[in-house]
Amino acid sequence: MNPTIELLKSHRSIRKFTDQPVSCELLEELIRAGQAAATSSHVQAYSVIHVTNPTNRVTIAELAGGQAYVATCGAFLVFCADMKRPTEAAERTEARVVRGMTEQLLVASVDTALMAQNVAVAAESEGLGICYIGGIRNNPQQVSDLLGLPDHVFPVFGMCLGYPAHQPDVKPRLPVEAILKQDTYTDDREQVAAFDATMHAYYQSRKGGTKQSDWSHNLTPLFDTKLRPHMREFLVERGFEMK
Amino acid sequence: MNPTIELLKSHRSIRKFTDQPVSCELLEELIRAGQAAATSSHVQAYSVIHVTNPTNRVTIAELAGGQAYVATCGAFLVFCADMKRPTEAAERTEARVVRGMTEQLLVASVDTALMAQNVAVAAESEGLGICYIGGIRNNPQQVSDLLGLPDHVFPVFGMCLGYPAHQPDVKPRLPVEAILKQDTYTDDREQVAAFDATMHAYYQSRKGGTKQSDWSHNLTPLFDTKLRPHMREFLVERGFEMK
Repeated sequence: MNPTIELLKSHRSIRKFTDQPVSCELLEELIRAGQAAATSSHVQAYSVIHVTNPTNRVTIAELAGGQAYVATCGAFLVFCADMKRPTEAAERTEARVVRGMTEQLLVASVDTALMAQNVAVAAESEGLGICYIGGIRNNPQQVSDLLGLPDHVFPVFGMCLGYPAHQPDVKPRLPVEAILKQDTYTDDREQVAAFDATMHAYYQSRKGGTKQSDWSHNLTPLFDTKLRPHMREFLVERGFEMK
Repeated sequence: MNPTIELLKSHRSIRKFTDQPVSCELLEELIRAGQAAATSSHVQAYSVIHVTNPTNRVTIAELAGGQAYVATCGAFLVFCADMKRPTEAAERTEARVVRGMTEQLLVASVDTALMAQNVAVAAESEGLGICYIGGIRNNPQQVSDLLGLPDHVFPVFGMCLGYPAHQPDVKPRLPVEAILKQDTYTDDREQVAAFDATMHAYYQSRKGGTKQSDWSHNLTPLFDTKLRPHMREFLVERGFEMK
């Protein structure tokens, strides 16, 4: 296992940070590393908002479901899918531009995620800890208003960065046999059952062993309510009509 | 710049590969590194199909728009967004499961991209070259049929992996000032103009300088036709209704 793979496999979300600030020079270096990720047809369909305004940080922490570390971490970034820049660039060449295709939503979301994951890896390689904040999609319109996001741009997730003040365990993952399948999709119920046992033991071993749960039970709040039922209408309003 | 950031910034898509095979042990190690990426609420909404069947490789190469290296690279993976596994796991706990929400499409696409980018970085750290194949979305239903993908699973992109037999230039990216914005979204038309000049010079310097284009002009085929207009209907058919 080379040092880069070792780094990747040591990822855990960091939610407690020291007071040490993250310099703007380092941030720019991380974003450049992010931009080096593959991008669909070179479209680079993303923008990143570095939120430095302390009041906005507190507001976003609340909008994201009360995640205080959004306000207290060394740097907070909002990764946005951005179809404004490339479509307007094409328009200036007098191309006839079609917007709002479902394919464009996919391209922009995937482009944004690839670049963000490079930022995450680069940050961790510099000794920073990170935490993705999907919670900004709890109130995506308010977050968009706060950041002055124009049409054809939407916030996909946030990211807290900073120097770690704790060292949580690396959380187990599904057995690789469940994920990696040869030639055809195959059932993985057995591996899921094994993983439920792994996660049950993991929760027992943490926090004095008070949490009685496993992977399958933990998923239920994601599906038994309509999590973020506003997303469709929000995206349509932003100009991602999913045509 | 530490070695990991150096590695990230040296990414280029590789489309010519030596005959050296990619071992199954290495592939599993890369997928494990992929799985270590952050995942929304631990949902791990992805599966990866390792396509080893030579006939299927040739078929997918054609379905992806005639990309021969899909058939000839050391290993070819199809990264699938997978909401089947987690929703069925939740159902087995007797949770009432809601499917087809737009938020779930986003979660699964982003989860898949984060893990794939870790796979890409891990592969490159082992001396492999990679190339994402978004072209499988040209014919996503045929690719899904070939791989036996069930409902609630869809192929987001493929990835060629192998030992590089060429060393293309690193392609320039937009100025970091266009991507990274402070506190609010700001216009970046000036940086785009500068980048058009950069790309024009880049195309002139390659291939004997025959290509007269820039970033903005290169984007036009993406938007002036309805690229992959079937994606909406395809996703709805797979059970991603974007409700």
